[in-house]
Amino acid sequence: MVCMPFYKLTVAYDGTNYCGFQVQPNGPTIQGELMHAAIDLFGEGVTVTGASRTDSGVHARGQVVLLKSDKMIEARKVPLAINMRLPDEIVVMACEMVDELWHPRYQEHYKTYQYQVYNSNIQFPQDSRYAYHYRQLLDVEAMKEAASYLVGTHDFESYSSAKKKPQETTVRTITDLTITEADSMIYISVTGDGFLYNMVRIIVGTLFDVGIGKRTSKDVEKSLKERNRQLTGKTAPAKGLTLMRIDYGINGF
Amino acid sequence: MVCMPFYKLTVAYDGTNYCGFQVQPNGPTIQGELMHAAIDLFGEGVTVTGASRTDSGVHARGQVVLLKSDKMIEARKVPLAINMRLPDEIVVMACEMVDELWHPRYQEHYKTYQYQVYNSNIQFPQDSRYAYHYRQLLDVEAMKEAASYLVGTHDFESYSSAKKKPQETTVRTITDLTITEADSMIYISVTGDGFLYNMVRIIVGTLFDVGIGKRTSKDVEKSLKERNRQLTGKTAPAKGLTLMRIDYGINGF
Repeated sequence: MVCMPFYKLTVAYDGTNYCGFQVQPNGPTIQGELMHAAIDLFGEGVTVTGASRTDSGVHARGQVVLLKSDKMIEARKVPLAINMRLPDEIVVMACEMVDELWHPRYQEHYKTYQYQVYNSNIQFPQDSRYAYHYRQLLDVEAMKEAASYLVGTHDFESYSSAKKKPQETTVRTITDLTITEADSMIYISVTGDGFLYNMVRIIVGTLFDVGIGKRTSKDVEKSLKERNRQLTGKTAPAKGLTLMRIDYGINGF
Repeated sequence: MVCMPFYKLTVAYDGTNYCGFQVQPNGPTIQGELMHAAIDLFGEGVTVTGASRTDSGVHARGQVVLLKSDKMIEARKVPLAINMRLPDEIVVMACEMVDELWHPRYQEHYKTYQYQVYNSNIQFPQDSRYAYHYRQLLDVEAMKEAASYLVGTHDFESYSSAKKKPQETTVRTITDLTITEADSMIYISVTGDGFLYNMVRIIVGTLFDVGIGKRTSKDVEKSLKERNRQLTGKTAPAKGLTLMRIDYGINGF
C-alpha cells in the first residue's frame, strides 16, 4: 500500500472575480486555481477537495481544503510555495498534515459565515467590495428578534433555492446567529452544522424584509413550519458574504 | 457683485489607481476626476480645492474639498448627482453650503490619518488593498512608548521628505498619536494641525524601526532635537495610509 500525504489547507480568497469554489466550465474558479498551483508544486495526480462549495462572488477567510498528493513536502513550507503559484486573490493561510481518514465534508463540523451590510445612503468606496449596500434604514432590533427564531434545529426548506430531492433532508441546526453594528455597518454572523443551497443569503434577505417592516418575527416562525420558499425573502447578493471559518469536532479537529 | 455658491464636499476615495489628489500631467488624479464631474454637473468655471494634497496611492474617508461654481444646486442633491459622474473609487459622502470666507486649508483645522499594518506571516487577500503587510514581528508596546515622544509641538524637520525652504516653518503640533491592535492588524492613528511632506509615513516607518528594535524611544526623542532626516526611518508605503477626517474649529466648522 502506498501511503499518500494528506494536507489540510486553510484558504482565504476574494471571490469577486471567480465563478465560485467548484470547478466548472464557464469561468475561473477557486478550486481550478488551487489545482493549477498544486499540480505545478506537487506534480500530476493531485486532488483538491473543498469543505464548502461557495457560490460565485462569495469570499472566504477560512475555507478548508483537502489536498492529496503522492509527493511529500513539509507542511510548514506549503503555504509560501503554493501562494507563489496562486493569483493574488487566493491565499493559503495555513497547512497541516492530516491522516487518510480525515475528510473536510464528511467529518462533523460547524461553518461560520458573516454577511456584511452597509446601511446608509452613501457607501464608502473602500467598503464596496465586501459589503452589500442597503440604502433603506433597517430596524436592527427587529432583525435580532426574528433571527432568534432561526436558532436551533429546524427544517429550513423555505430557506433553500434548490428543489428538494426526496431522499435528502432539509433539517439543519443553527447554533448561533448574531447581529452586531458599528457605525453604519451591520454584521450578520451565522454558525451551523451545514447549510442548504443559498440558505445564508436567503436568511439575510428575509432579515432585510423584517428590517424594513415587510415581514415580522411571526412570519419567520411560520416560514420554518410551512416549508415554502414563497414565505422567505430574496436571496441577498453574494458580495456581502464571507465564509469565516470551519470548526471540526474533537475527532476531526 | 455676483455671489457664487460655495460647496464644502466630504470626499472618500480608494487612491490605489490614482497619482494622488492634485492634478498633474502623469496620470489620473482625484482632483482631476472631481473637476471633470463638477464641470459636467455645474458647467464651465468650476474650481475644486482640496484640504489635503494626498500622495499617490493614499486613500481617504474624509477629505474636504471646496467647490466653487456660479450655478446653484441644492446642497443635499449634490452628492448623488456628482457621484453618478465619478468613477466608483471616488465618492462624495456629504455636501453643505459654506460662506465665501471659508477655505479648506487656510482655516484652522486638525487632520486625522490612519495607517493600517498587517503584522503576520501571511496576509488575507481581503486586507491587501488598504493595509501594508509587515512580516517581521513588531513590539507594539515599544512603538507606543516611542510614539508618546512625538505628541505635542515639535520641529518635525527630521520627518519630512521635502527640502526645507528658508521662509517655511517645520514646527507642527500632533495632538494625538494612538496605536491599537486587533488580531494581527495594527492601527496607527495620528491627529495634528498640519503635516509636512510624507510626515505621517516617515513617523510610521520610524515606529516600524522601533518595533523591530532597530531604533529606541531615545532615538525618536533625539530625532526631534537634531532635525536630520537620517535619524528617522524609511517612508512607509502609501497603500496603508488613509486620511480619515478633517475637523475645523468653531469658526471654521
